[in-house]
Amino acid sequence: MFKLDPILENDTVYLGQFALCQVLLMNDCQYPWLILVPQVADVSEIYQLSKAQRQLLEQESNFVAKTMSQLFNADKMNIAALGNVVAQLHIHHIVRFKTDTAWPAPIWGKLPVKPYSEEKLLTMKTKLLETFRQNPSFTQ
Amino acid sequence: MFKLDPILENDTVYLGQFALCQVLLMNDCQYPWLILVPQVADVSEIYQLSKAQRQLLEQESNFVAKTMSQLFNADKMNIAALGNVVAQLHIHHIVRFKTDTAWPAPIWGKLPVKPYSEEKLLTMKTKLLETFRQNPSFTQ
Repeated sequence: MFKLDPILENDTVYLGQFALCQVLLMNDCQYPWLILVPQVADVSEIYQLSKAQRQLLEQESNFVAKTMSQLFNADKMNIAALGNVVAQLHIHHIVRFKTDTAWPAPIWGKLPVKPYSEEKLLTMKTKLLETFRQNPSFTQ
Repeated sequence: MFKLDPILENDTVYLGQFALCQVLLMNDCQYPWLILVPQVADVSEIYQLSKAQRQLLEQESNFVAKTMSQLFNADKMNIAALGNVVAQLHIHHIVRFKTDTAWPAPIWGKLPVKPYSEEKLLTMKTKLLETFRQNPSFTQ
């Protein structure tokens, strides 16, 4: 049975889910950063998903990347399935700006995580949810 | 018209191509590292591809990730579309080992690139091409 990895659970805020993936907001106010986690037990690589699951992941990732890029006017989206520390399959979707503190380096391990204030977290969640709710396969 | 970015051309060795992507071997002997480049002009994000192109990319990426993982007995595959330096859409597929020098950090910017010797490059190319040639959509 699928159970969210405790590190992911600790580092993120649950936003909702698509047909396949949970949508988690990384609690780091330095970059708009969502993580998609396919709700499938014991999977650490994309190729371990079934063909139908991979197609869903592609659609959900595409929606998230396009939505975030437009919503935040991104200079670049960084999309990555790494998982060297947390083995449970999860796919990062990070909005990058030429003005962000880590640019142009990848963000992992670059700067310590900076959690949102309560107010900024609410603003960010509201902004994301307004758009995500327009996708009929998104539920909370 | 599609033209490979000169930085990618300089840093890699051409292996062949699928229906959508060129397959490039990163000239860094520290990790088995392939880069897929969709042969589509003026695209820097996956979501800018058409649906048919995204489906091809998913299939080709899946084949590359699964093949490399099995061929090298990977501890983890790292798959990423970053593109903060080279904007032309390209997707990294990197075999990671718990014993590699950058583990568990992502590899980008971690250690200077270490080009293959001529002999090791030939061995690597031969090993990869033997398997890739079994995919009917792969051509050289």
